[in-house]
Amino acid sequence: MPDPILYIGNKNYSSWSFRPWIGMRATGIAFEERLVPFDMENGNPDFQTFSPTGKVPVLVDGDLTIWESLAILDHAARLYPQSHLWPENTAFRSQAMAMSSEMVSSFMALRSACPMNMRRERKPIEVTPAIAKDVNRIQSLWSSSLEKSGGPFLFGTFSIADAMFAPVVNRLDVYAFETMPEVRAYMDTMKALPAWQEWETAGRAEPWVVAEDEA
Amino acid sequence: MPDPILYIGNKNYSSWSFRPWIGMRATGIAFEERLVPFDMENGNPDFQTFSPTGKVPVLVDGDLTIWESLAILDHAARLYPQSHLWPENTAFRSQAMAMSSEMVSSFMALRSACPMNMRRERKPIEVTPAIAKDVNRIQSLWSSSLEKSGGPFLFGTFSIADAMFAPVVNRLDVYAFETMPEVRAYMDTMKALPAWQEWETAGRAEPWVVAEDEA
Repeated sequence: MPDPILYIGNKNYSSWSFRPWIGMRATGIAFEERLVPFDMENGNPDFQTFSPTGKVPVLVDGDLTIWESLAILDHAARLYPQSHLWPENTAFRSQAMAMSSEMVSSFMALRSACPMNMRRERKPIEVTPAIAKDVNRIQSLWSSSLEKSGGPFLFGTFSIADAMFAPVVNRLDVYAFETMPEVRAYMDTMKALPAWQEWETAGRAEPWVVAEDEA
Repeated sequence: MPDPILYIGNKNYSSWSFRPWIGMRATGIAFEERLVPFDMENGNPDFQTFSPTGKVPVLVDGDLTIWESLAILDHAARLYPQSHLWPENTAFRSQAMAMSSEMVSSFMALRSACPMNMRRERKPIEVTPAIAKDVNRIQSLWSSSLEKSGGPFLFGTFSIADAMFAPVVNRLDVYAFETMPEVRAYMDTMKALPAWQEWETAGRAEPWVVAEDEA
């Protein structure tokens, strides 16, 4: 079987692409990467050629096309059980899924005001009450999981929950939010992953600038 | 072990509550239901007493509290494998997860213009291009799954994907969208489920009216 193909957008900006990419890379799952840069002016017409939603990321695994970051990660967890992408402990697994789904459904204020941006110089933005509420909830989730698991990742070893929140680690970092000490330690653990470093280095080197993501 | 407790909002309106409720009821998983009505004027203060997000639904299973509809269903699928809540076929399962995650992340135009409403008299609304795009995508997803699986549910037998889209079945119905024949047949299959009938009957009988959900 050839390796699955992961279609992604710009490494500097594509937060949804970063999630399955770091999840698979950090756990040693082999895949072929196809980066298709954003084309904001023309509505990303190239994405239509491989993506049923016209969005990235998409995983093509043999005859199967999987869209949605969380679904790609769940697919990878089942097909590559040696990755241990889901926590094995039942309680941790259910909570990892709840956190991952909350990431998909929530935090709109933070997501729209603070786009992921690997090369942004660390500086604060004006924090509205809605953004502060999102950041407080996220820190509370992380802090509680880290306390229960003992860290260094949310559920002990690296899991899908960490992959799903990786772009938020970047956001809390580059928009210079005040962080609890255990949250800062967790962010440093994530940023020290070889997979994170590989992605960030490539993102910083990209020539493309997306004006609407430069907040 | 006592049955898990599922906290839900109003059956007439709470689309997120309907998802795990119908998923567990339709597959014979026993649970204790606790309905806490919406209190829109006061920001649902009662929800804070049992829900980490201040939202419904929430499942309390022994020591474990699970929030987010998709996570509750995934937890139920693992703890009650006889429910067959996820399709057993690998390709179907991955696509069911992608569709379920897309339900969580998407269709904002439809969701905000057309709240779930079990007792609404069937009548159309003004269909904006954004709403039409959502409805077309949903019909395309359903039609394609029904064709691949042969129906009568999205992936053959009832699965989490059906539970996640159940409130959308109500929306396409009561807001009188034009539907493809196979989509209409699927909607009728869903509405004929004893679990659907039980929920709808209870929702219609509720005394509470939420003005902002009467579109």
